[in-house]
Amino acid sequence: MEFTASQIAGFIGGKIIGDENALITGVSPIESGETGHLSFIAQDRFAHYLETSKCSVIIVSENLLSKDTYAPTIIAVKDAYLSFQVLMNLYQEMQGRKSGIENGASIHETAVIGENVYIGTFTYVSEKAKIGEGSQIYPQVYIGKGVKIGKNCKIDSGARIYDYCIIGDNCVVHSNTVIGGDGFGFQPTPDGFKKIPQLGNVIIEDDVEIGSNCSIDRATIGSTVIGKGTKIDNLIQIAHNVKIGKNNVIAAQAGIAGSTTIGDWNQIGGQVGIVGHIKVGSQVKIQAQSGVNTHVNDKDTVYGSPAISYNDYLRSYVHFRNLPEIVKRINNLENNSKDKTNE
Amino acid sequence: MEFTASQIAGFIGGKIIGDENALITGVSPIESGETGHLSFIAQDRFAHYLETSKCSVIIVSENLLSKDTYAPTIIAVKDAYLSFQVLMNLYQEMQGRKSGIENGASIHETAVIGENVYIGTFTYVSEKAKIGEGSQIYPQVYIGKGVKIGKNCKIDSGARIYDYCIIGDNCVVHSNTVIGGDGFGFQPTPDGFKKIPQLGNVIIEDDVEIGSNCSIDRATIGSTVIGKGTKIDNLIQIAHNVKIGKNNVIAAQAGIAGSTTIGDWNQIGGQVGIVGHIKVGSQVKIQAQSGVNTHVNDKDTVYGSPAISYNDYLRSYVHFRNLPEIVKRINNLENNSKDKTNE
Amino acid sequence: MEFTASQIAGFIGGKIIGDENALITGVSPIESGETGHLSFIAQDRFAHYLETSKCSVIIVSENLLSKDTYAPTIIAVKDAYLSFQVLMNLYQEMQGRKSGIENGASIHETAVIGENVYIGTFTYVSEKAKIGEGSQIYPQVYIGKGVKIGKNCKIDSGARIYDYCIIGDNCVVHSNTVIGGDGFGFQPTPDGFKKIPQLGNVIIEDDVEIGSNCSIDRATIGSTVIGKGTKIDNLIQIAHNVKIGKNNVIAAQAGIAGSTTIGDWNQIGGQVGIVGHIKVGSQVKIQAQSGVNTHVNDKDTVYGSPAISYNDYLRSYVHFRNLPEIVKRINNLENNSKDKTNE
Repeated sequence: MEFTASQIAGFIGGKIIGDENALITGVSPIESGETGHLSFIAQDRFAHYLETSKCSVIIVSENLLSKDTYAPTIIAVKDAYLSFQVLMNLYQEMQGRKSGIENGASIHETAVIGENVYIGTFTYVSEKAKIGEGSQIYPQVYIGKGVKIGKNCKIDSGARIYDYCIIGDNCVVHSNTVIGGDGFGFQPTPDGFKKIPQLGNVIIEDDVEIGSNCSIDRATIGSTVIGKGTKIDNLIQIAHNVKIGKNNVIAAQAGIAGSTTIGDWNQIGGQVGIVGHIKVGSQVKIQAQSGVNTHVNDKDTVYGSPAISYNDYLRSYVHFRNLPEIVKRINNLENNSKDKTNE
Repeated sequence: MEFTASQIAGFIGGKIIGDENALITGVSPIESGETGHLSFIAQDRFAHYLETSKCSVIIVSENLLSKDTYAPTIIAVKDAYLSFQVLMNLYQEMQGRKSGIENGASIHETAVIGENVYIGTFTYVSEKAKIGEGSQIYPQVYIGKGVKIGKNCKIDSGARIYDYCIIGDNCVVHSNTVIGGDGFGFQPTPDGFKKIPQLGNVIIEDDVEIGSNCSIDRATIGSTVIGKGTKIDNLIQIAHNVKIGKNNVIAAQAGIAGSTTIGDWNQIGGQVGIVGHIKVGSQVKIQAQSGVNTHVNDKDTVYGSPAISYNDYLRSYVHFRNLPEIVKRINNLENNSKDKTNE
Repeated sequence: MEFTASQIAGFIGGKIIGDENALITGVSPIESGETGHLSFIAQDRFAHYLETSKCSVIIVSENLLSKDTYAPTIIAVKDAYLSFQVLMNLYQEMQGRKSGIENGASIHETAVIGENVYIGTFTYVSEKAKIGEGSQIYPQVYIGKGVKIGKNCKIDSGARIYDYCIIGDNCVVHSNTVIGGDGFGFQPTPDGFKKIPQLGNVIIEDDVEIGSNCSIDRATIGSTVIGKGTKIDNLIQIAHNVKIGKNNVIAAQAGIAGSTTIGDWNQIGGQVGIVGHIKVGSQVKIQAQSGVNTHVNDKDTVYGSPAISYNDYLRSYVHFRNLPEIVKRINNLENNSKDKTNE
């Protein structure tokens, strides 16, 4: 990457203060700027970096500017945060998409591969799998029998997608995530546990992103479903027959047990556990590390293990921290009471 | 898959009510039945689906039937749940096992491969490894030096089995699980941590199933052991020198720290943590998210972090939720007491 | 492995009591010794195994010896634990390092590979990647564009290292760990979440070891950093822009959210969660399963969810367990108070 201040100002419609030929070759957070790098300042509390940053070019929200000249070259815009986003997206697009089938990929003759698809070396595509137009399948991916992947997806190295699972358009699956492994279903018998065949699949709707090292199990029968636009972080467990709605955000290391249903627009914190066979509504917030063991209504915020109302949990926790003091007060009351009795 | 109602009735010894030629091409949960699909009803609370399901054929426990005819074709049996299991197992078996060595597998010349073994493309089998009769090793698996895998195992794509680990017969290891990585052992020194070599292995006994993305570390010396018939869900951590007995069920994202011993027939919930160097008995239940930091006796049920008796935890938690009210009562008592003193 | 007692005594400068030709072919923990195996006794509480162990040769701290002869051959040393470590390290070194490029690795013509590097079959090395002298890259690893790996590293099978990430010297990355996956960053809009490009990288300094199945995300801009000498167990989540200092030990299944800064020499327990945008000092201990949601000062020990001072948490937890009794005492006080009022 190598751009001049004036090229960047052109991309985002900004006004240059300083050297329009200043060259940038990288991007830094403002706290750790480097010579030759670009950064941005969108908040008053970072404005002091205008005086001290080593960055060569800084995009700044115009209301934060008060002087005529600064050491770095400034690109003044209305909202530096938004402009910087625009720039990052543009840069990402410039990287281009990969396409073409690399040597050393193993693709079954009955698989159907769309136009402009990229398939990396050491990727294995099983019989009757379909990969939609413009999708990029990185090296060392496993794609099972009859899997369908939509258009413009990105499946990273080492992801495993088992037989008959379906992935929509514009999805991202990061490295080493496993989609469609067997659900955890066993019948107890006196001699041990007998496996219950897991014959369903996983359906992932459009615009879903799934982080690395996640496990999303196939349904026993029917489908485990991840709804449109839902974003899933790393190391997350989604058990068999779970149904997740649209536009949820689920943070790292959360786990959802079998057959639970989750609505839309929920925020589920890191390391949260949700038991099986319950219903979580929509617009719910579940605080990190909570253990949800009962239905949750729309718009509730819950916390604790087992989870209760967020405010109730915090109010109780304040007293929990104060329990030694509370017990002292009870001791005093008892002593006073005895004193009175002994009077 | 394509069967007629009369073929299915034949498999499970059921009696047809309706069209014996009704054709099914898939299976649905009864709550979301589809035309052309098979489902089952084994409980009274689902009996109303007899009137509304779109399924073409439904297997029903005979005691739930009251009419002479229904819209879907009915297959009446004694216990619809059991009959459906029989059918699913049958269907699974019909899928067949893979066998043969695919082109592009890398197998060391000193490795010993049993009869009817399947080894997929991009799988790497190291020197002196042994793979028993009928086992299926999917593509992209790594098998280290001197590893022994028994008969009729299934090792899914991307699993890694490190040097000298031993796996019994009829085991299943799901995708991206790592067996025999180094235990987490370091000696602190003033200059930093010095690695303690991890020279032991992992022994997995017969009939064990291990989910996806698990980490089961090799022993420092000796063996980390998973006992016969134990079933392990996804994303689980088993540290070095842990010994797990027979027929345990361990739910997703649980973790067991080094050198801990676990008996038989235990149920360990999701996201449970168990500290190192303790002993958990047999027939113990550990509730989800509990943190076990001390020995647990046979047949105990524990909960909480740190974990205590399940009933005690719940009783205390009720009061925890009620702490604001409890503190108000103490305030009142103190006020009354002062009032009396001031009288 | 096959050594005589006198060879072993030679390695560690020990004195033989018994048969100097006793042959050992393996190593056992003293609790489960086997004929033909070596073990060690460094503590008084294991000294009784001198009489009962089946091991052929035992290294023993000399102060634990009281007789002239024992059934197994004894190698007497000053500190049996240290001598045993020396021996294990020696044995590990004898195993040798792998080197050479195996057939079937895919290495871009612009990649720069140092001397004595091992690259296994099915490993994919992208353009302009650099791998330093003596490093071992096992089979089925993915190395992205412009990645730099230092000297004498070991990258295990199935690890994924994404574009432009940097790894120092003497690092170990275990199987299926993902370094440099996208950070979890999305902009909420009324139509759903819009991905924020993750354009930074991950920098891993020298002497770092990272367990299996970890996810270490690349920074949005700038770098996610793991400091020199830090050791990370399995299944751990490190989010974008986290900065971790030197010589930390982080136990399995812990998670650290975005932009948090961690000092040096901390001990972070298993399944700990640390929220984003906070600062944890140095020499801090965080107990297992704790949820840290605020800054932590140097040398503090914290526990609980949310985490508070370790001692405070334990003191409160004692009363938590006793809450039913405490509530009874309040009931009594209220009854007494009523009695008095009614007098």
